[in-house]
Amino acid sequence: MDLSKLRRAAEDGDAPDAERRDILKAATLVGGAAAVLGAMAPRTAAAQPVQVAQAPALSDKPWWPHPKWGKDDQAGASNWITPAKVLDAVKGIKDGKIYRIGRVYESAMPKYGERTFSVRTTPTGSSYGANRLIGHEEFLAAEVAQTGTQFDGLGHIGIQMGKDGDMTEMRFYNGVTEFEMITAYGLKKLGIENCKPIFTRGHLFDVEAVKGRMLEAGEEIKLADLRAAMTKQNMKEEDIKEGDALFFNTGWGKLWMKNNDKYNSGEPGIGLEVAKWVVDKGACVTGGDCWAVEVVPNPDKNLVFPVHSELICKQGIYNHENLDFTALIADGKHQFAYIFSPAPIRGATGSNGGPIAVT
Amino acid sequence: MDLSKLRRAAEDGDAPDAERRDILKAATLVGGAAAVLGAMAPRTAAAQPVQVAQAPALSDKPWWPHPKWGKDDQAGASNWITPAKVLDAVKGIKDGKIYRIGRVYESAMPKYGERTFSVRTTPTGSSYGANRLIGHEEFLAAEVAQTGTQFDGLGHIGIQMGKDGDMTEMRFYNGVTEFEMITAYGLKKLGIENCKPIFTRGHLFDVEAVKGRMLEAGEEIKLADLRAAMTKQNMKEEDIKEGDALFFNTGWGKLWMKNNDKYNSGEPGIGLEVAKWVVDKGACVTGGDCWAVEVVPNPDKNLVFPVHSELICKQGIYNHENLDFTALIADGKHQFAYIFSPAPIRGATGSNGGPIAVT
Amino acid sequence: MDLSKLRRAAEDGDAPDAERRDILKAATLVGGAAAVLGAMAPRTAAAQPVQVAQAPALSDKPWWPHPKWGKDDQAGASNWITPAKVLDAVKGIKDGKIYRIGRVYESAMPKYGERTFSVRTTPTGSSYGANRLIGHEEFLAAEVAQTGTQFDGLGHIGIQMGKDGDMTEMRFYNGVTEFEMITAYGLKKLGIENCKPIFTRGHLFDVEAVKGRMLEAGEEIKLADLRAAMTKQNMKEEDIKEGDALFFNTGWGKLWMKNNDKYNSGEPGIGLEVAKWVVDKGACVTGGDCWAVEVVPNPDKNLVFPVHSELICKQGIYNHENLDFTALIADGKHQFAYIFSPAPIRGATGSNGGPIAVT
Amino acid sequence: MDLSKLRRAAEDGDAPDAERRDILKAATLVGGAAAVLGAMAPRTAAAQPVQVAQAPALSDKPWWPHPKWGKDDQAGASNWITPAKVLDAVKGIKDGKIYRIGRVYESAMPKYGERTFSVRTTPTGSSYGANRLIGHEEFLAAEVAQTGTQFDGLGHIGIQMGKDGDMTEMRFYNGVTEFEMITAYGLKKLGIENCKPIFTRGHLFDVEAVKGRMLEAGEEIKLADLRAAMTKQNMKEEDIKEGDALFFNTGWGKLWMKNNDKYNSGEPGIGLEVAKWVVDKGACVTGGDCWAVEVVPNPDKNLVFPVHSELICKQGIYNHENLDFTALIADGKHQFAYIFSPAPIRGATGSNGGPIAVT
Repeated sequence: MDLSKLRRAAEDGDAPDAERRDILKAATLVGGAAAVLGAMAPRTAAAQPVQVAQAPALSDKPWWPHPKWGKDDQAGASNWITPAKVLDAVKGIKDGKIYRIGRVYESAMPKYGERTFSVRTTPTGSSYGANRLIGHEEFLAAEVAQTGTQFDGLGHIGIQMGKDGDMTEMRFYNGVTEFEMITAYGLKKLGIENCKPIFTRGHLFDVEAVKGRMLEAGEEIKLADLRAAMTKQNMKEEDIKEGDALFFNTGWGKLWMKNNDKYNSGEPGIGLEVAKWVVDKGACVTGGDCWAVEVVPNPDKNLVFPVHSELICKQGIYNHENLDFTALIADGKHQFAYIFSPAPIRGATGSNGGPIAVT
Repeated sequence: MDLSKLRRAAEDGDAPDAERRDILKAATLVGGAAAVLGAMAPRTAAAQPVQVAQAPALSDKPWWPHPKWGKDDQAGASNWITPAKVLDAVKGIKDGKIYRIGRVYESAMPKYGERTFSVRTTPTGSSYGANRLIGHEEFLAAEVAQTGTQFDGLGHIGIQMGKDGDMTEMRFYNGVTEFEMITAYGLKKLGIENCKPIFTRGHLFDVEAVKGRMLEAGEEIKLADLRAAMTKQNMKEEDIKEGDALFFNTGWGKLWMKNNDKYNSGEPGIGLEVAKWVVDKGACVTGGDCWAVEVVPNPDKNLVFPVHSELICKQGIYNHENLDFTALIADGKHQFAYIFSPAPIRGATGSNGGPIAVT
Repeated sequence: MDLSKLRRAAEDGDAPDAERRDILKAATLVGGAAAVLGAMAPRTAAAQPVQVAQAPALSDKPWWPHPKWGKDDQAGASNWITPAKVLDAVKGIKDGKIYRIGRVYESAMPKYGERTFSVRTTPTGSSYGANRLIGHEEFLAAEVAQTGTQFDGLGHIGIQMGKDGDMTEMRFYNGVTEFEMITAYGLKKLGIENCKPIFTRGHLFDVEAVKGRMLEAGEEIKLADLRAAMTKQNMKEEDIKEGDALFFNTGWGKLWMKNNDKYNSGEPGIGLEVAKWVVDKGACVTGGDCWAVEVVPNPDKNLVFPVHSELICKQGIYNHENLDFTALIADGKHQFAYIFSPAPIRGATGSNGGPIAVT
Repeated sequence: MDLSKLRRAAEDGDAPDAERRDILKAATLVGGAAAVLGAMAPRTAAAQPVQVAQAPALSDKPWWPHPKWGKDDQAGASNWITPAKVLDAVKGIKDGKIYRIGRVYESAMPKYGERTFSVRTTPTGSSYGANRLIGHEEFLAAEVAQTGTQFDGLGHIGIQMGKDGDMTEMRFYNGVTEFEMITAYGLKKLGIENCKPIFTRGHLFDVEAVKGRMLEAGEEIKLADLRAAMTKQNMKEEDIKEGDALFFNTGWGKLWMKNNDKYNSGEPGIGLEVAKWVVDKGACVTGGDCWAVEVVPNPDKNLVFPVHSELICKQGIYNHENLDFTALIADGKHQFAYIFSPAPIRGATGSNGGPIAVT
């Protein structure tokens, strides 16, 4: 998601042409300012093994230190990836088939707001040596961790506590503040280099198949949908273990580079109900065939990407966006080893890369 | 390597200060123009199962079409990664331990020539929604596939056949010409998106341990060194199978961010003797703890990165540079599953990422 | 203009959505391959004081060395800017009023093809010193010399002589070849740093006013239109002197950030007839309120930006694109001192900046 | 100057090699925390026609609204550039000679801290049309307004009032707060597009000539030095008028690309005494042959770039850094028309470009 764009939409009115249309759409997603936050409250009221912390608007209760990983942790849910976990995932590899579940990166892909993805080839000139060597390189200018298939890290999303604009009260995972972490040249804390390589069991919920159609923007995936998918797919809920990765297929990915405007205009995805369940399951990663994995706009128009707040910021659960499950689904594979090792750019908020599912 | 820099070193004389020193060093590496190419000839004279093609200076014989992968292939040695290969690699995973064998990316890392790696954090502004969401992104400007731990793809290296400057005679893997593949916005052929995810068996040759010291720039790793390493490491040569990845540890990596000037000034590595053996073994990938994996300067001063020419361009074998085997060596692990799935940037000459070894 | 885009349009078919539409439009502009080049011939047949060289398809006659500036010259028509010329321009400054004739640079402006213009603010962190200093910077990733108001330099446009793809026969101003000038890090010859600051007399031809309407894409400004404009504006042709700058207002600039799609789809502008007159007049710079100043598509469908070939490449005349004459026209000012001093980025093909007219 | 670098120097210790040396040097410049701020107090105690506002450490008195340009002004001292001012500057143009007083931009130039200046040429591919057009472009990735010859705008420097990290109390020119102006995509207020083109009288003080040597880092230019320069140069102080530009030559520029390490390690320049005089004179722009124009480190070790705070932030006076007066001095020209029209990148903190002096 593109926060500056949202802000500008609210405050300015000077964007041109097609861009203006996108902004207005995005602004609409954010919704009005009047409604109460009641929707969240009941969902978080019951005691839970790992509690979904409340939004700060509802409570001043901090979510830090992390109850399981401790006050100094910067690796979040990647801590689940132990040797035992790896071996557990390896056990599921039966046929040796690798599925690419990420997309090809290119400038024409949907990019939210003003994000850039620009590749420039640099030329071959004369040759070198008696072997007459020539060669190419290329230069990339991009929001590299936040364009295309992207793995959101723990420095990506935070919550403003206290007074607006107070960097000492902008809180991220484990309570790290903006004031402690920010530099112009990468984050001093919570950079993606702290995330351990992910090699775990993956479970895919094909909600599109359950519904028999692509879900629509603003359509929330409910826990009942996931249970229907498990039934249809012959999966058992108790087979989902701590540290596993959970993937949601909505069909929205079919719009990729076919209808970028619609793709960016909102999306189906999980809401706070499923987010709570994700936390209860002790997931390591969530992922989906949409750009935010969560439903946009949220059914509660007062909330902006609340699943990001709950999962990334409060729990340290990573989020893998813009995935493509087409080949897995074609082969009827809903469980697999999910392997993704982020490019450890110091101080980055996430990672691009080439995620794979192995069956 | 940085080709434009080499060329400028030969032709200009106007670089300032420390940069001039680097250029002159690099220029020295290329060596004089007088010596004959005799060194290569005997090495390639004998018939081989998969022949090392000769440098065009020695022969006009084209190396295309690829004898095994066919005339239209763009995936090169990643074609070795079949389900059977994956299962073979999986079999070697016993303890579930993941080793990161790539380095953290940061602007202070050694970067050859004028390459750039610049990360800029973009700021958190005001918050959004009743959940008061805030966030960061960052912008990267970099030779993303050719800085830090980098996986050289098949569009990276070619050979000028025919007349200098003739783009229709600049030949890459499978004979693709510069004229067919070049655009300002990425390559139309041989882009890294054509490389299949790598999940194979890896073998590490710790030549530093054999020598009892870090190898020096210009010091060539010989086949005898590899055989000594195998003996020392209890590895058998016949255990190396087609499609495996071969890694060379020289100790040069100890200079990383400790002495960047020396690190960039040249390097130890394999030469044409080992390159021929690599081809005979049917390797999928070569890798090392240096920036080019091959010896620089080459003992034959007339040759510039000839191993790149032979392996990448003629054979389609990938090359993984700037790796770090410290933890593997500390644990005495010389064989492992090597997993690397390139970020499929359309038309790119390689990939950064987070390569792992799993034991 | 964006050459790679044109080429890809001809060869590929894989661009998505709106982008595809733009490409197809551009491809249409280039026109079919069958028509003869007869249109150009008569225009260049007559002897001229400074001859418009013929297109290489018509003649193999080289245009170098430059008859006036000599074989080693890299400054082209900026050589007209002598002290006498400056004093002549200064004489015309009567009221001291400065007009900005360039546009504000921003990502939402029309950008041809895949060009990028991305600005990223880097954040203020903590303060420094007892004076508690804070600050911002920003990072730009852009085709900086070829986006927005842009001043085309002499390394921008060349002509392929000889065989396609032969870099030793790609010729630019004064016969410089691609092979001599190219590096990945800027041009070794004909970089914009060779252009002298421009301080000269400017003449504006308001063809929109003559026509009483905005000109349309593909509509060529004829010499008769310029003469009508001079009459209407009380200007005399003999008052145009060697080294002056000539500007053409078409009304197309009214589409800027109002209808970027139409703006980019083509444009009115000068053709080869006026180009020849421009050369005869010994102009230093041409400029206009369009993105190429010349008519696109050219009435002769076989020609692609032929005015660029004739003026920039063969004559060394600079071209200032995407200007805005609104305020000058509102004040009835058609003659002025035109001042533009390029940002001397070594090896760049042009310059952005803040051109002014002073009356 | 590079603020994040300073901050990191204070807090971290992990930079490598040569870079670490630079950081430590910079950190040294900032000085210890113990000394009192007495030095500033007497300089600002006396009443002045245009008062130098006190540093917030000394006083909580805000410097806004601007007493002359009003509360909504965003153009600052460029408001001095009226038609009368232009005509006054034009009067001084006698011989029509143009001097470039900016430097060529290239990656090897001194760049403070981690700033980047990277140019990449994009290649010529095949030709277009019967006229066989080819061409180049280039891509720039840079702190474009803060590398090389740079013109600091009013969004560049601010002062933290109130609590550290409170963006609503980070104040810039005319009291604009960080919270109001910041977006990831450029500043919403005080961007350089608000600066009017500068065409004014310039006065050069050749302090190097007065001293008979290059000044050294940390050596403050005093008012007495300027008066000695005026005497030596046959200039009268009363000839300096409101809206003029004041330039200081120290000789430090001789280090440019000759000894970048020394160039970046500190610099001679003006201090608060001359800054006050600059304000009293009603200057439009200050400039120099150093990277900050002001003395670094400041003789008062508690202050970090206090002249920037006083002139840019409080007064709205622009600062032109990394200029080159060599040719002017060689010709004995100390007064001239100074012409600089910033590239109006929306929301940028300054501008690169090609400043000229015309005599």
